[in-house]
Amino acid sequence: SFARGMQTVTLIPGDGIGPEISTAVIKIFEAAKAPISWEERNVTAIKGPGGRWMIPPDAKESMDKSKIGLKGPLKTPIAAGHPSMNLLLRKTFDLYANVRPCVSIEGYKTPYADVDLVTIRENTEGEYSGIEHMIVDGVVQSIKLITENASRRIAEYAFEYARNNQRNSVTAVHKANIMRMSDGLFLRKCREVAENYKDIKFTEMYLDTVCLNMVQDPTQFDVLVMPNLYGDILSDLCAGLIGGLGVTPSGNIGTNGVAIFESVHGTAPDIAGMDLANPTALLLSAVMMLRHMGMHDYANKIQTACFDTIRDKKVLTKDLGGNSKCSEFTAEICRRIQDLD
Amino acid sequence: SFARGMQTVTLIPGDGIGPEISTAVIKIFEAAKAPISWEERNVTAIKGPGGRWMIPPDAKESMDKSKIGLKGPLKTPIAAGHPSMNLLLRKTFDLYANVRPCVSIEGYKTPYADVDLVTIRENTEGEYSGIEHMIVDGVVQSIKLITENASRRIAEYAFEYARNNQRNSVTAVHKANIMRMSDGLFLRKCREVAENYKDIKFTEMYLDTVCLNMVQDPTQFDVLVMPNLYGDILSDLCAGLIGGLGVTPSGNIGTNGVAIFESVHGTAPDIAGMDLANPTALLLSAVMMLRHMGMHDYANKIQTACFDTIRDKKVLTKDLGGNSKCSEFTAEICRRIQDLD
Ligand SMILES: CC(C)[C@H](C(=O)O)[C@@H](O)C(=O)O
Ligand SMILES: CC(C)[C@H](C(=O)O)[C@@H](O)C(=O)O
Repeated sequence: SFARGMQTVTLIPGDGIGPEISTAVIKIFEAAKAPISWEERNVTAIKGPGGRWMIPPDAKESMDKSKIGLKGPLKTPIAAGHPSMNLLLRKTFDLYANVRPCVSIEGYKTPYADVDLVTIRENTEGEYSGIEHMIVDGVVQSIKLITENASRRIAEYAFEYARNNQRNSVTAVHKANIMRMSDGLFLRKCREVAENYKDIKFTEMYLDTVCLNMVQDPTQFDVLVMPNLYGDILSDLCAGLIGGLGVTPSGNIGTNGVAIFESVHGTAPDIAGMDLANPTALLLSAVMMLRHMGMHDYANKIQTACFDTIRDKKVLTKDLGGNSKCSEFTAEICRRIQDLD
Repeated sequence: SFARGMQTVTLIPGDGIGPEISTAVIKIFEAAKAPISWEERNVTAIKGPGGRWMIPPDAKESMDKSKIGLKGPLKTPIAAGHPSMNLLLRKTFDLYANVRPCVSIEGYKTPYADVDLVTIRENTEGEYSGIEHMIVDGVVQSIKLITENASRRIAEYAFEYARNNQRNSVTAVHKANIMRMSDGLFLRKCREVAENYKDIKFTEMYLDTVCLNMVQDPTQFDVLVMPNLYGDILSDLCAGLIGGLGVTPSGNIGTNGVAIFESVHGTAPDIAGMDLANPTALLLSAVMMLRHMGMHDYANKIQTACFDTIRDKKVLTKDLGGNSKCSEFTAEICRRIQDLD
């Protein structure tokens, strides 16, 4: 079983503060005795045969074997013509679902309390198709591509997620009043899938209405599922409600168990190497990863120690309102993990 | 000059609570002695020659003459196949800019204080082109259309607005990292226009980043300009920050002085005819209208009386946290206007 032997995870430390916060996560996992062995890889895209951008073969091989990745921030774009690494990774491993739980963190004050929702974003098509044309001079079109298969797949993922995570409702977010065919197709698939999950409440809401309601009372939402761009927007909006990208975990889920968990904040080059970074987002992403791997006990232990540290307010990094270094914050979490044993 | 004789405005009371809140605005304008004469029209779409949906000729004629409309909520869609009245009006009168000032209302508590920003939405193209195809079974595309002309026009409107309203900065909101050609074109036009407004600070920001920053600290924003769908989303999000659609005014601006001002909330059929509706959004839209017509003194007087009434908290409709009827709230505003004289 998962919890017995060591499981290999491909670790992509990333750029800027990436290596520091990765080290923090490694230390905390050691303190928790989580049975993970890390295989470190660099994913900066290289030009492959025919000039196509690809991730380095040794990184691809590691992921193909381990199936699970943990990734820090990547500077992007590296150079003109260089692809977005995030997009390339999603494509390379067909990571079709971006999952972002947004849960209020006790002790970390924002204008909102008791936020507890999950955005599930279709990650492969929609406005991100990359198909654009210039029709005539000064007239450009971008194509939003919605398919039945991708829509059904993400809807099924959302309902499975809801069921497996004791959540009560799924809201499909759309603009089918405007994009009748494309968002209409997405919505129809959500409705069809909903039929198979009578235990989960299904609702539909316009994206603009979701945004308005979200900033007025986010506690009314549970699981939200939506096409690519709407997910890009809503996942960041929701991260803002609980304190920003520094405390928000993210997971990109593919088929056959493949998944990459990542912090979605930037590389913070201004503080890189200074032991000032906040590893919380990467750590909570690693906790999501443990749950994905079925290691709930380790996940709970680490999450408790992290949230206790934040609630306690004594040892916090600057961005969390404290004065401590990344290494001190990390050590405090480790100490609490040992106390929990 | 504008302030001398009576100016005709086409009044579209709308459905549900529309007539009540229109009556409230008429009364308040009377109390303020605003030199407006109302020409009431119904705009519910009818089928014209060749089966094309159009607004009734007498409404079109009134608008063509008066150039200025004030519009309550319309129930939409009326029936299957019936077009969105909002879209039809934008199209009929080429209302290319949707303008929504979002300003915190003293005394009406939300999680945010001191919001003071304006969203300016391109209203004619983008994701609202209405062009969609089924490529093969289960594969649908929607076309987002961005033109140089519409992009330049909205950018120019935004900078003119900023200059004429003592605003300091314009932020272009985009996803040109994903939609390089379409949002790229939009962004390029914004940059070009910015060159002609050296007195206004110009910045660019990704839509997802705007959403995240907006819910964390909306006071950092001033004027925001963006393509159609992004404006649909952001304008509602920002309305949520200051208390929702019940207190948020909206204006749709066309060429040659044509404009329609409107409350963007629903028809609230559950309370229609019960003298319970809140006329604030329509009233503040009418105040925007007065400013558009150059009648700043009347605008200031009415706005002051409205905000004083809300700050005072004694006579408020239910949705604003009070117990008063629409007519009582209206009478209180009228009383304060007379006091101001
Ligand atoms: C970096 C960018 C390509 C990306 C996106 O737009 O999807 C980012 O905003 C995200 O959400 O991961
Ligand atoms: C009713 C609908 C067509 C409209 C839109 O999507 O533009 C509405 O949300 C708005 O913002 O006016």
